[in-house]
Amino acid sequence: MKFNKKLENIHTYEAGKPIELVVREFGIEPKDIVKLASNENPYGCSPKVQNAVAKIIPNMALYPDDSMLKLKNALTKKYDISNENLIIGSGSDQVIEFILHAKADENSKILINSVTFAMYEIYAKHVGAEIIRTKSQKHDLDEFYELYQKENPDIIFLCTPNNPTGDAIDAQEMMQFLEKIDNNTLVVVDCAYMEYGSYKDSSKSVVPAELLKKFENVIYLGTFSKAYGLGGMRVGYGISQNSIIRELAKLRPPFNITTLSLEAACMALEDEEFVNNCIALNFDEMKRYVEFANEKKIDIIESYTNFVTLCLNSTQNSTKLCDALLQKGMIVRDLSGYDMNAIRVTIGTKEQNDRFFELASALL
Amino acid sequence: MKFNKKLENIHTYEAGKPIELVVREFGIEPKDIVKLASNENPYGCSPKVQNAVAKIIPNMALYPDDSMLKLKNALTKKYDISNENLIIGSGSDQVIEFILHAKADENSKILINSVTFAMYEIYAKHVGAEIIRTKSQKHDLDEFYELYQKENPDIIFLCTPNNPTGDAIDAQEMMQFLEKIDNNTLVVVDCAYMEYGSYKDSSKSVVPAELLKKFENVIYLGTFSKAYGLGGMRVGYGISQNSIIRELAKLRPPFNITTLSLEAACMALEDEEFVNNCIALNFDEMKRYVEFANEKKIDIIESYTNFVTLCLNSTQNSTKLCDALLQKGMIVRDLSGYDMNAIRVTIGTKEQNDRFFELASALL
Repeated sequence: MKFNKKLENIHTYEAGKPIELVVREFGIEPKDIVKLASNENPYGCSPKVQNAVAKIIPNMALYPDDSMLKLKNALTKKYDISNENLIIGSGSDQVIEFILHAKADENSKILINSVTFAMYEIYAKHVGAEIIRTKSQKHDLDEFYELYQKENPDIIFLCTPNNPTGDAIDAQEMMQFLEKIDNNTLVVVDCAYMEYGSYKDSSKSVVPAELLKKFENVIYLGTFSKAYGLGGMRVGYGISQNSIIRELAKLRPPFNITTLSLEAACMALEDEEFVNNCIALNFDEMKRYVEFANEKKIDIIESYTNFVTLCLNSTQNSTKLCDALLQKGMIVRDLSGYDMNAIRVTIGTKEQNDRFFELASALL
Repeated sequence: MKFNKKLENIHTYEAGKPIELVVREFGIEPKDIVKLASNENPYGCSPKVQNAVAKIIPNMALYPDDSMLKLKNALTKKYDISNENLIIGSGSDQVIEFILHAKADENSKILINSVTFAMYEIYAKHVGAEIIRTKSQKHDLDEFYELYQKENPDIIFLCTPNNPTGDAIDAQEMMQFLEKIDNNTLVVVDCAYMEYGSYKDSSKSVVPAELLKKFENVIYLGTFSKAYGLGGMRVGYGISQNSIIRELAKLRPPFNITTLSLEAACMALEDEEFVNNCIALNFDEMKRYVEFANEKKIDIIESYTNFVTLCLNSTQNSTKLCDALLQKGMIVRDLSGYDMNAIRVTIGTKEQNDRFFELASALL
């Protein structure tokens, strides 16, 4: 049977190994496995969220409110924007999917950072669009602008803080960059880790309402999967001008968020204290990773997220290190697929990090 | 900003009004609202499912096992097929979306029944494909074959039992039809309501393993949203040859099913007794709708699902009837959008149906 030609170029995304897979592959007991590979919140989600979801379990049979009014109201209050500026996706991933399908096709060019979130490229391939990458590993906005002028891309993705490196763009510099971009190029500012970034350094803070006030062609992406501790519930969002949101909404499948996920996200926004405590703990624990890297004379990229990227020395090999850790039940992310001899480690709880240092010390 | 031209033809899907919206619009108390509009299981889901989900609520922070091995194993056991023949979607809706994006584009033709599930057309528009419809309201396979020969469609959708009419195709006739279709035309057999259909009449029963044995070009769709009582959790699936599944899988976003939804679906398959009891109750209650229609001298389409379609007389108006019911807190589906002067009513619990008969009696 014939399928669309563009499928020939698509490979399936490889997610961080779930605990279940390690149990199966290595026969390690689930209690002995530590997963620091997917940048989940190691403290889970707020007890208030857990209680709220438990209460509506009998509603699993009922389709969700497809208008998502309660969640939209909560988000628009948080960000001081209007409901018409908001679209909710099954993770911010799905908003990225909407963007590619609405704005790009096989004649389009998409400009992204050399090392960045893998889904931009994957969804670009779904529509057959061409990917243009910078050379710089950090977002270099001068290089972005140069490539923008040369290639005239339909969409530019900026990821700040960036995954999988953890560094972040200076917000003022980004605003200056955005001013130079033509209104027909859509700029996606993916802020999946922004709760961490703006906590650590206000100069990295990107504010959706300010983007809306100044730009016709920018969309801000946020998620409940990271700081809000709801990675398993698949809720993210995009904030932009209504003229853009309206087009993306045409591609939103009905009922794209589960009934329990909507409740979880609403309640998560009512317990920002929990989130802030998690973020504070995250940066306390991160200091130990910096010390560990210094001791081991390994480069660590300054991180504005809930993970660190350790750049190994030339005598070390990231794939071998990850495999060796995996056999001990420690799951971290090998970045060799990004052409980096590096590993990405989610900052876990104190006990999880202790275990990482213990195992990694023996191997480095 | 310019967007893809095909978006111009897309209108957003209008879901059945959720209870929340009626509360807001008419100020009716939630306890006084009866929603018989979205074909949810009025008995909810199994208590075993509810308990299993409650237990893993702390796991909401963790991304789901993207291999979905546990659910795949349970489904392949149920259907006597292999894991490589299976793809899981966020509702069977999402599998429909994969199919359109994998197999169709702006040069494609999609053959569907005149009155059928709205999402086939909506996803066809997402890729700019042309929709060809039969004239017959019931699936007339001779007409389908005639149009197939004339139009050479890339995809044919058969919906059995059909939504929103409730009738079903004779399985033997369907098998004979499928034998006549060329291997490069993909035939989708959407069996979202098959648990009801095969319970009522085994001659309507479509068996995925038999389709797999006989045909290279057929995909079976199933869902947990109807008989299994998990409409709010968004889990459906497609069963086909691996050569087809492999292509669709390229378009599956990672983590498209929530952590809690995977658990709910797995446990639902372990309590088939609950499901069968719900289906038995459904057909007991359906008899009362047949009696009601006879009394009121209204045509009722023989239904193999958990809903009935009442075709009104020319002196009656489905839109006015639905509006009048809505103001009393009774939500049913107006089928005027399908060019039918008819309403679709989900078979509810005894009490919900009592309320429908009481309110509708006063209006018909």
